[in-house]
Amino acid sequence: MAEKLRGVFTPNMVPLDDRGEINESELRRYIDWLIERGVHGLYPNGSTGEFTRFTAEERRRTIEIIADQNRGRVPILAGAAEANVRESLRACEHYHRLGCRAVAVVSPFYYKLGPAAVYAYFREIARNSPIDVTLYNIPMFASPIDVATVQRLAEDCPRVVAIKDSSGDFTHMMRMIQAVRPVRPDFAFLTGWDPMLMPSLLMGCDGGTHAVAGVAPEAMRRIFDLTTAGELSTASDLQYKLLTLFDTMINPSFDFPAGVRAGVELRGFRLGPSRQPQSGPTPIDGAKLSAAIDALLK
Amino acid sequence: MAEKLRGVFTPNMVPLDDRGEINESELRRYIDWLIERGVHGLYPNGSTGEFTRFTAEERRRTIEIIADQNRGRVPILAGAAEANVRESLRACEHYHRLGCRAVAVVSPFYYKLGPAAVYAYFREIARNSPIDVTLYNIPMFASPIDVATVQRLAEDCPRVVAIKDSSGDFTHMMRMIQAVRPVRPDFAFLTGWDPMLMPSLLMGCDGGTHAVAGVAPEAMRRIFDLTTAGELSTASDLQYKLLTLFDTMINPSFDFPAGVRAGVELRGFRLGPSRQPQSGPTPIDGAKLSAAIDALLK
Amino acid sequence: MAEKLRGVFTPNMVPLDDRGEINESELRRYIDWLIERGVHGLYPNGSTGEFTRFTAEERRRTIEIIADQNRGRVPILAGAAEANVRESLRACEHYHRLGCRAVAVVSPFYYKLGPAAVYAYFREIARNSPIDVTLYNIPMFASPIDVATVQRLAEDCPRVVAIKDSSGDFTHMMRMIQAVRPVRPDFAFLTGWDPMLMPSLLMGCDGGTHAVAGVAPEAMRRIFDLTTAGELSTASDLQYKLLTLFDTMINPSFDFPAGVRAGVELRGFRLGPSRQPQSGPTPIDGAKLSAAIDALLK
Amino acid sequence: MAEKLRGVFTPNMVPLDDRGEINESELRRYIDWLIERGVHGLYPNGSTGEFTRFTAEERRRTIEIIADQNRGRVPILAGAAEANVRESLRACEHYHRLGCRAVAVVSPFYYKLGPAAVYAYFREIARNSPIDVTLYNIPMFASPIDVATVQRLAEDCPRVVAIKDSSGDFTHMMRMIQAVRPVRPDFAFLTGWDPMLMPSLLMGCDGGTHAVAGVAPEAMRRIFDLTTAGELSTASDLQYKLLTLFDTMINPSFDFPAGVRAGVELRGFRLGPSRQPQSGPTPIDGAKLSAAIDALLK
Repeated sequence: MAEKLRGVFTPNMVPLDDRGEINESELRRYIDWLIERGVHGLYPNGSTGEFTRFTAEERRRTIEIIADQNRGRVPILAGAAEANVRESLRACEHYHRLGCRAVAVVSPFYYKLGPAAVYAYFREIARNSPIDVTLYNIPMFASPIDVATVQRLAEDCPRVVAIKDSSGDFTHMMRMIQAVRPVRPDFAFLTGWDPMLMPSLLMGCDGGTHAVAGVAPEAMRRIFDLTTAGELSTASDLQYKLLTLFDTMINPSFDFPAGVRAGVELRGFRLGPSRQPQSGPTPIDGAKLSAAIDALLK
Repeated sequence: MAEKLRGVFTPNMVPLDDRGEINESELRRYIDWLIERGVHGLYPNGSTGEFTRFTAEERRRTIEIIADQNRGRVPILAGAAEANVRESLRACEHYHRLGCRAVAVVSPFYYKLGPAAVYAYFREIARNSPIDVTLYNIPMFASPIDVATVQRLAEDCPRVVAIKDSSGDFTHMMRMIQAVRPVRPDFAFLTGWDPMLMPSLLMGCDGGTHAVAGVAPEAMRRIFDLTTAGELSTASDLQYKLLTLFDTMINPSFDFPAGVRAGVELRGFRLGPSRQPQSGPTPIDGAKLSAAIDALLK
Repeated sequence: MAEKLRGVFTPNMVPLDDRGEINESELRRYIDWLIERGVHGLYPNGSTGEFTRFTAEERRRTIEIIADQNRGRVPILAGAAEANVRESLRACEHYHRLGCRAVAVVSPFYYKLGPAAVYAYFREIARNSPIDVTLYNIPMFASPIDVATVQRLAEDCPRVVAIKDSSGDFTHMMRMIQAVRPVRPDFAFLTGWDPMLMPSLLMGCDGGTHAVAGVAPEAMRRIFDLTTAGELSTASDLQYKLLTLFDTMINPSFDFPAGVRAGVELRGFRLGPSRQPQSGPTPIDGAKLSAAIDALLK
Repeated sequence: MAEKLRGVFTPNMVPLDDRGEINESELRRYIDWLIERGVHGLYPNGSTGEFTRFTAEERRRTIEIIADQNRGRVPILAGAAEANVRESLRACEHYHRLGCRAVAVVSPFYYKLGPAAVYAYFREIARNSPIDVTLYNIPMFASPIDVATVQRLAEDCPRVVAIKDSSGDFTHMMRMIQAVRPVRPDFAFLTGWDPMLMPSLLMGCDGGTHAVAGVAPEAMRRIFDLTTAGELSTASDLQYKLLTLFDTMINPSFDFPAGVRAGVELRGFRLGPSRQPQSGPTPIDGAKLSAAIDALLK
C-alpha cells in the first residue's frame, strides 16, 4: 500500500513564454527550486496553476514536463479534472503511467451540483481510475463536497485516499476528520488554506497544499516541521508572518492568482503574460509584497 | 448593419447516442422541430446545452451540425466560451465562417473575477472577433457582469451587440437598459429568466433565451407575440402557466439541466445518457412535468 | 368585510427634535402633506421608519399621533412587531382601538428562523389579533417567509389579509400570487421594491409600500394610476425615472435609510438628528439627489 | 486597571415559569450550578440568552438577579444592546452600578450597516460608557465588524477592552489578533465558536463565550485548562467530543437556541415555555443529545 499523503504540497504556476506557450525550461528550473527548498510534494493543474485557462493538451503537457523533471524525487499530485468523467479518466490513466503518486479532482464546477450528483461523479471516477484519487473541495469556485459525501466516498471507494479542503472553514475540516478517520485511518486530510496550516496540523491534519509554498517554500516547510516537532511558539510567530504574506498576495482588490504570480516573480522566475487579459496597471503593491516575503524568510 | 437580436432563442440540449457520442440525426430532427414550432433563433453551447461537459472539438461539431441543418432559416447565437481568449477567438472565427448571426460568451467562470478583469476579457474578445458578440451574464455560475461594465463595453466595443442576462434580477435588467439604451439604441437585451419574459418585454427587453423554449417552443413564442401585441390578459395567463412548468423543471431538488432533459424527452426526443453520472433514481416527477407541459400547450 | 388593501402606502420616517425626541408637530405636518399628495395609505413603524431604533413606547406614540392626525382620511397599516408575540399582540390591540386598518408584522429577525418557526409565529399572532394582519417579508433583514408558508398562513388564518414583499425578487412575488390567489382572492399583494411597481401591477399585484413615496408621493401615485389605466408608455418613462431616484437614495455606499432621510428633507421637512451615530460627513450627493427628484416630479 | 478578560464565559439562558415570566429561583439555582462547575464568568443577555425576545425591563431584571446571586464570585459580562445608543448607555450605567465587570454590545442588527456606521456606533457608546465594553461580532445575525474597524476602535477607545467573535471564521480571529495585539496588549479575544476553543487558544485567544458551557460547563473548563497546560492530546480528544455535542445541539434542522434549551433541561433545569411559538413536535433527538453530553462528561 502506498504511503499516506503527508506534508506541504505546492500548487505550482506554469511559466509562459512571450508567445503565450508553456515555457518548458523555466518550468523545469522552478520545479527544481521548489524541491530543493524542501516542499514535500508538487501539485500541478490546481487552481493556483490556472488549470481552467489551459487546453486539455496543455494540462497534459504540464504534467509530462514536471514528472520528467522530478525524476521521482517527490510525490506528484496531478490535477486531473477534465470536461467529463471519460476525459478525466483518460487523464488519470496518463498520469498513472507517468508515475504520479495520485490525482486531485476538483468537484464539478460551473453548475452547482447537490450532494447526490457530487457523490456519483467521484464514485464513477474512483471505480475506474488506476491511480489514487484526492477529492478537492473549494466551495468558492466549485460544487461543495459536504461531510456526509466525503464519508460515503471514503467508505465506498478505496481508491479515494485524501481530501484537499480549500473551504477556509476550520470546523468543516474537524467534522471531516471526525467522520472519516475511524473508518479510514489511512485517509489523508490536506488543508488548502495557508493561514491555518499550524492549527490544522494540531487538530489532526496531515499537511496542506498551499499557494504560498510556491513563493516561500522554505517557510511553509518550516511551519510544518516546527509544528510537528511541538515547537509551538516559534511556529506561531512564523504562521502569523505567513498570514501577512497571504493577505498581501491574496485579497479582494485583485484577482486570484495575480498576487501569487507577482510573488513567484519576486523569487526570480519569469512567468510571462497572464492568460487572463488585464486592463490598466496592476493594483498589487510590489514593495509591500517583497517586504512580506522577506519578513517570512529571514 | 445586421438586424438587432429579437425574440425567443432556444438554448438547446445536445442528444447523445448509446456510446455517449453526439447523436447527429436526433439533433437535426430536434432543430427542425424547434424551428417549425416558431422559435426566433437557436442558441447552442449555452448552460442548458451543457457546454462545459463537452470537449472543445464536440462544441465545434455541435455548431457545425446545427448550422448545416438550419440552412439560414433562423439566426444562430453560438456559445463560444473556451479555455482562454485565444481559444475563444478561434471559435468565433469558425462560427463566423459557418454563418452564425453572433456568438454568446459567458463571463469568465471558476475564478470569480472583479469588474476590471471581466471588462478586459470581453474587450479583448470584442476587439478581435469577426462576428458580433453577446455578453452572457449568469452570476449563479460565472463572474457577474455589473451594470457599469456592460455600459463600458457597449460604449467601447461596437462588436458587442447584446447581453443575455440570466441573473433573475428584474431591477438589474432595468438598470442595464437605462444605462445602455441612450448610447447604443441598437444594443439588444435578452432575458434568460423564463418566468419574467412578459414583464421584461413590457419594460423594454427585446426577447429572451429560455430553456423552456426547448420543451414548449410554441408557448414561449406565443407569450412573446401576445405581449408585443398588447394582449396582456391572455399573455399573463400563459406566463403563469409557464411559471408552473419552469418550477417543475428547474428546482433545487434536482440538478440543472436534468429537468429540461426530462421535458425534451417528453416531447419525443431521445437525449441519451447524461454526461453527469447519476446515483439512484431521478427525483423528477414525470407525471407532474407532463401535466405542466400539457397545461401550457392546450 | 373590510376592503382589500390597494394602492401606494408610504412607510414614513419619524421627525425628531433637537433633543432627539419625536417632533410631533413636524410629524403631523408631514402626514398631511403625504395625504394631500395622494398616497393611498400610511405605513408607520416600518423599516424606512427605523422602528428598531425606537423604544416600544415611542413606536406606540408614533401611531397615536398619526392616527389622530389622519382622522380617517386614509387607511393606516401600523407596524406592530415587538420583542415577542405577547408584546406584539398588545400593540395589535392598541392599534385596533386607534382605528388602524391593519397591522404589518415583520418576520422574526436577528435569529434566522426556518419555515416552521416563521409559520408558528404568524399563526399565533393571527389567531389572537383583533385587527387584520399583513405579513412583511424582507429577507435581507429578517427571516424569509417562503411561498409555502405564505400559502399555509393564507389558508389557515382569515386574519392574515396581505403580504408586503420587499425581497426584490420578481419571481417570488409571482409564485406567491399563483399559490394564494386561487384560495384567497381577497388576499392583497404589495411590493416593497420601488423600481418594480409598474411590472408588479401588470402581473397582478395590488399595490406597494414604497420608501420613495415618502419623498415623491405624487410620482408613485401617478405610476400606479397610469399603469392601472393601461397607459404603459408614460408609466414606463416615469418608472425608469423613479429607478434613478431609487438608486440615488438607496445604494451600498451609505446606510439605509440615510438617503431617504436626505430626500424627505429636500422636500421641506426637518427630520432632525439620526438615531444612528455618524462619523464624518455623509457621502450622499445632495445635488444629484435633488436633480433625480426634480426629474421625476416635472 | 481591571484584569484582562480570560477563560470560559457562559452565555446563559433565562428560565421562565408557566406564565412566561422570568423564573427567578430557577435562574438563581442555574447560576450557582454554573459557577460551581467552574465557568470563569457569566454572560447574560447574549444570543443564547435570547435577549431580543425579552423587553428592555426584563433584560435589566435578568442582570439584577444574576449580579445579586453571583455576589462577586465571577466576572459578569452583561449584554447591553438596546434600541439605540441612548438606551444602551442607560443599560451600561445600570450594569456598572450592579458591579458587572464589562458589558458586551452586539453590532447594530436588522439594518446591515457598513464599517463607518459600525465604528461610529461603538465609538459613541465607548466614549460615554462608565463600564468597559466588549465588542460582539456575530455576522450571521448582525452587521459585521471588520478587522480595520476593530483596530480603529481598539486604538481610539480605551474603554473597548475585548471582542467576542462568533463568526466561526478562524482566519478572521487571527487577523484581529495580528492587527490589535501590538497596539493594545491588554485587549482580550474571546471566541464564540465552541468547536474552535482549543485551536483558538493555541493561536493566541484569551478564552471564549460558549453556549455549550451552559450545558457542559465542566468540559468547556477542562478544555481550557488542558490546552493552556499544554496537554494537547487529551485536550484534542475532548474538543472533538465537544464538536459532536455542538453539532447535535446547534444545527440547521431546528432553530437556535432550541437545542441549547434541550441540553440545559437534560442537566436538570426547568427552562419553561419558549418565547418563540412552536408548531408541531420538536425535531430534536433527546437520546442522541443525552449521549453526546454523557460522552463529553465521562
